[in-house]
Amino acid sequence: MRAAIAGASGYAGGELLRLLLSHPEIEIGALTAGSSAGSPLGAHQPHLAPLADRILGDTTADTLAGHDIVFLALPHGRSAVVAAELGEDTLVVDCGADFRLTDPVAWDRFYGGTHAGTWPYGLPELPGQRDRLRATRRIAVPGCYPTAVTLALFPAFAAGLAGPDVVVVAATGTSGAGKSLKPNLLGSEVMGSVSAYGVGGVHRHIPEMEQNLSPLAGEPVKVSFTPMLAPMSRGILATCTAPVRPGTTAQVLREAYETATKDEPFLRLLPEGVWPATSMTLGANTAALQVTLDERAGRVVAVIAIDNLTKGTAGGAIQSANLALGLPEELGLPLNGVAP
Amino acid sequence: MRAAIAGASGYAGGELLRLLLSHPEIEIGALTAGSSAGSPLGAHQPHLAPLADRILGDTTADTLAGHDIVFLALPHGRSAVVAAELGEDTLVVDCGADFRLTDPVAWDRFYGGTHAGTWPYGLPELPGQRDRLRATRRIAVPGCYPTAVTLALFPAFAAGLAGPDVVVVAATGTSGAGKSLKPNLLGSEVMGSVSAYGVGGVHRHIPEMEQNLSPLAGEPVKVSFTPMLAPMSRGILATCTAPVRPGTTAQVLREAYETATKDEPFLRLLPEGVWPATSMTLGANTAALQVTLDERAGRVVAVIAIDNLTKGTAGGAIQSANLALGLPEELGLPLNGVAP
Amino acid sequence: MRAAIAGASGYAGGELLRLLLSHPEIEIGALTAGSSAGSPLGAHQPHLAPLADRILGDTTADTLAGHDIVFLALPHGRSAVVAAELGEDTLVVDCGADFRLTDPVAWDRFYGGTHAGTWPYGLPELPGQRDRLRATRRIAVPGCYPTAVTLALFPAFAAGLAGPDVVVVAATGTSGAGKSLKPNLLGSEVMGSVSAYGVGGVHRHIPEMEQNLSPLAGEPVKVSFTPMLAPMSRGILATCTAPVRPGTTAQVLREAYETATKDEPFLRLLPEGVWPATSMTLGANTAALQVTLDERAGRVVAVIAIDNLTKGTAGGAIQSANLALGLPEELGLPLNGVAP
Amino acid sequence: MRAAIAGASGYAGGELLRLLLSHPEIEIGALTAGSSAGSPLGAHQPHLAPLADRILGDTTADTLAGHDIVFLALPHGRSAVVAAELGEDTLVVDCGADFRLTDPVAWDRFYGGTHAGTWPYGLPELPGQRDRLRATRRIAVPGCYPTAVTLALFPAFAAGLAGPDVVVVAATGTSGAGKSLKPNLLGSEVMGSVSAYGVGGVHRHIPEMEQNLSPLAGEPVKVSFTPMLAPMSRGILATCTAPVRPGTTAQVLREAYETATKDEPFLRLLPEGVWPATSMTLGANTAALQVTLDERAGRVVAVIAIDNLTKGTAGGAIQSANLALGLPEELGLPLNGVAP
Repeated sequence: MRAAIAGASGYAGGELLRLLLSHPEIEIGALTAGSSAGSPLGAHQPHLAPLADRILGDTTADTLAGHDIVFLALPHGRSAVVAAELGEDTLVVDCGADFRLTDPVAWDRFYGGTHAGTWPYGLPELPGQRDRLRATRRIAVPGCYPTAVTLALFPAFAAGLAGPDVVVVAATGTSGAGKSLKPNLLGSEVMGSVSAYGVGGVHRHIPEMEQNLSPLAGEPVKVSFTPMLAPMSRGILATCTAPVRPGTTAQVLREAYETATKDEPFLRLLPEGVWPATSMTLGANTAALQVTLDERAGRVVAVIAIDNLTKGTAGGAIQSANLALGLPEELGLPLNGVAP
Repeated sequence: MRAAIAGASGYAGGELLRLLLSHPEIEIGALTAGSSAGSPLGAHQPHLAPLADRILGDTTADTLAGHDIVFLALPHGRSAVVAAELGEDTLVVDCGADFRLTDPVAWDRFYGGTHAGTWPYGLPELPGQRDRLRATRRIAVPGCYPTAVTLALFPAFAAGLAGPDVVVVAATGTSGAGKSLKPNLLGSEVMGSVSAYGVGGVHRHIPEMEQNLSPLAGEPVKVSFTPMLAPMSRGILATCTAPVRPGTTAQVLREAYETATKDEPFLRLLPEGVWPATSMTLGANTAALQVTLDERAGRVVAVIAIDNLTKGTAGGAIQSANLALGLPEELGLPLNGVAP
Repeated sequence: MRAAIAGASGYAGGELLRLLLSHPEIEIGALTAGSSAGSPLGAHQPHLAPLADRILGDTTADTLAGHDIVFLALPHGRSAVVAAELGEDTLVVDCGADFRLTDPVAWDRFYGGTHAGTWPYGLPELPGQRDRLRATRRIAVPGCYPTAVTLALFPAFAAGLAGPDVVVVAATGTSGAGKSLKPNLLGSEVMGSVSAYGVGGVHRHIPEMEQNLSPLAGEPVKVSFTPMLAPMSRGILATCTAPVRPGTTAQVLREAYETATKDEPFLRLLPEGVWPATSMTLGANTAALQVTLDERAGRVVAVIAIDNLTKGTAGGAIQSANLALGLPEELGLPLNGVAP
Repeated sequence: MRAAIAGASGYAGGELLRLLLSHPEIEIGALTAGSSAGSPLGAHQPHLAPLADRILGDTTADTLAGHDIVFLALPHGRSAVVAAELGEDTLVVDCGADFRLTDPVAWDRFYGGTHAGTWPYGLPELPGQRDRLRATRRIAVPGCYPTAVTLALFPAFAAGLAGPDVVVVAATGTSGAGKSLKPNLLGSEVMGSVSAYGVGGVHRHIPEMEQNLSPLAGEPVKVSFTPMLAPMSRGILATCTAPVRPGTTAQVLREAYETATKDEPFLRLLPEGVWPATSMTLGANTAALQVTLDERAGRVVAVIAIDNLTKGTAGGAIQSANLALGLPEELGLPLNGVAP
């Protein structure tokens, strides 16, 4: 099977290519870009030696046509335009936000403008989601933060152990902001410094988190979400807390997480007392997870580490694509991080 | 006035010395250490050129005697022993935990063993605290996290705008863990990685935060606190949230913070829309602060950046010492960070 | 084929395991350690999820017996002792220094004590070396710096374009120093700082560099070598200069490098004008290389980036082992770095 | 005395302001910028709390007029234009390159175009230079690399111990590249990576190094110079080597450095066996220096650490300005680094 990658010059595109180079069933086809079209991939992804001389094409339906799979790693709003011209038989996997939300009102509030629609949500670990992904030609890859937060809290909500007043604070590496040339993303600014941004209920990933967790909670979940930029390229560490339901013991909580994760190839519940570090998952499609009950404060505290570019974007995209293609879900996806 | 520093080979001791070297009214006297006694300071603090040849003495009452001020930067439990032998007229400033807590039960629960007592708490910004510090010869310097969290939330609690279900997640640089030779503090482990630790209501700074905020709240405040280790040497960025009291508007909240900070020399409420970064305060005694109302989630969100070694330890210690010595509170304390 | 790894708790051991987990022909057998014996691998290598529960054995001949391959990742001096007890049919691959040098005098000067002997040197790219590696059961894996420096300069010396007054300055990530608990390796010390060490002709890797280059030069090469510790976990960037032979043009120099690298699977001569960055090779067995002629100064300047743990240690070890095992040289070795 | 700063929004401008805020004899006057004119300084230098509300003016002769001192921190080529309109009695201190070189041919070769002229060179440690600086109203602040390299090697050349075939490799923090929005300066690219640039005798600072060292050597010195970008914001660590003159012993070399540095307030020759780290000098005007004789390779090896923004730019500028103003040379300049 051949895959085209639209947006191959960016960080998400680069990670898709890195993973696909090791994928035994997917061959890399057309690579396209926006303003970088016409230049060799090596100028943008110097770590991808085998593809260094491939020339980037324009992101047009013509260039993307004739592939079994098209991965879209495009700025928000572009995916819908490009996807509309792709054939129904093509598996289209959108790493952007265009088709993630089900609620047009939430779309308008957080993104603005007209909602493009909703595609099956590419988070196989969400209860019931695997079957939907096996039967689709269109996949909306979750945002990196919603991936982390949903995976950290779904076991608690699915088991009825947590209440809806969720507070999440997450640190991310700078690659989450993409390659945009902004002063605050310069190395001189980010090294040696942690900073907050998008505070106060305005981050676009919030409705996505609430959309994932509310059905499991059986009531509207509200997420207070604060992201931080940390001095590292990759990785998300999310601390996710929710009020514990009365009567829940630490043992019941632990069992709920063991049950929810034991058959999941990419969810790794750490031994008790071991807390996640993003280095555990660098370059891997694995999520490292731990949970505890803070009895004094009456809250479930779940902490999760993922690589924002791998499990949080490109790895998650390939994992869902594997399902849609009838391949083993784990195919071509690294379980091990690169450390130290 | 002459000051002795006990624990001069560690990170807190080094920061005390760096600041005292620029203090116009305090002269540096004896420097003492534990296992490093007998070696030159330059072997431990190579950045302090003018003191490189000073030899470290033993941390004994004899060595520390004859100074107007004694700063203790010692492991938890050692301060009480050393302080017991120092004269009542000497200003003793303890950067450790021994005398911070008022509640022996909390002490026993979080630290274990017998409570050494309670000294005036060295956080001048806490309402009413300046007068206590002007009249004492004993000061308990706050913990770095409680400094950050208390400064971030006291305006909201003092104005009656926040409820007691506080959730705090804070990232710290590795110097907060001191110079201890643990594998998880090696550069190879911490660079490129954010990790959680002390999760679930077990961190020793929690009772101190609650002790500071509860009187302002007029009811017992419970803090769910999760610390993270970030890949930087210095700095704390704390995201502090609490349920907003019904009827509180964004404007009322802003005004409460403006009122609480406008006469404080070291509290800097940032312009609206600007969020703190630890680089703003590196090496400075300044706290950079911002607040907003998350109306969707119904929570006050305050974010604060401090340098854990400066405002969070050594700078805070000198600020309080200035008060006790009848000097201008700001004397010898940098307002500006070193950036980029 | 089954491989035992002695020293599995260290950084070199961890990288061997990470790579072997993806190797299609080598199965992971016994894992041994020194003081960490008896503990699970997950306590030391938390990024290697599939091996987390494997218990470390003692590093004894008994534990290592019965494997087709034994990788030794032990402190200097230990390999010789362990290797003496391993069967002649076992492929023994030593990542340490014990068997690298041919000259007992150089050994005594730089390491001290009695020379254990000399094994075939595991640098397949060195002219003539592949055949030696195909016919051996004992391999001495090169040091990380000699790997970088030799690969950067052998094309110039092999083509007779460079003189023997070599000056090399190389920056390394902290993992090159291993997991040793030294204050100068703490994150607080290394982040935000570059430092020099082992300056002035005393670094143990110097005789190894000279041993590699002198035969190609046809005269004794002298290397002035200065290593630096850089604030990153992995990677070596070495700037290697030598006087250019009279009459050498930039074009001749370029062609020599093209010739020397064009059939090498892991040597990547970058396009002209592009200079190496260690991020190009993070986690990969690739060396990224560039060369130029500084006509003003009359020197060849070659710059090379490798991952010290991959091509510089564990990847290089597996590459040579593949040859000795009659497997394709590239088997199981990543060509792509993990970036950004 | 009042000082205007042209280019106050950049890194050099920010460091000038940070230092001047602590200078007892210089008051901060007009702040100007290019495209940032009209915005508050706080938007560009958020660490400079006391100046946050100062509005940036245009960089014109009118705005800069009426000050005793004008510091120029402008892009190459702009200084000459601005300086031409400033009064002869004004002390003009140019942090740019326009007036550093004496040789118009070198200027044309490395910078291109017409040479603006030559001003007294602001490196007081260079033999004979202090007197020239005391008598001038125009100062050309050295480049950051030439500052480091000249200070590292002048003692050897002044004592006749080194030959002219100099090889220098230096690592710099990213602030040396300024605030330019280039992809290779993004945090995601620079963190965890060391990269080479400007290799092969093309870096613009080379003629400046040769201009400083050749008169001391009594013959033309040729510098092979390779800069590297390291993952830190600030700091230069330069390894500087030159062939040792026959008969020079380690003791003679050491004595030459002791003699050359003993009366220099900002040159710190470290104790034997201690090698520089950039963290020793972060934010300080100090250069930390060490030297040794590599007898095997026959080279002097001097390693130096400076803060590129402090001693390498803004601190050096103020040091020279102090001399020109008849003030104590050390006034307002920190001797201590901020560490860890």
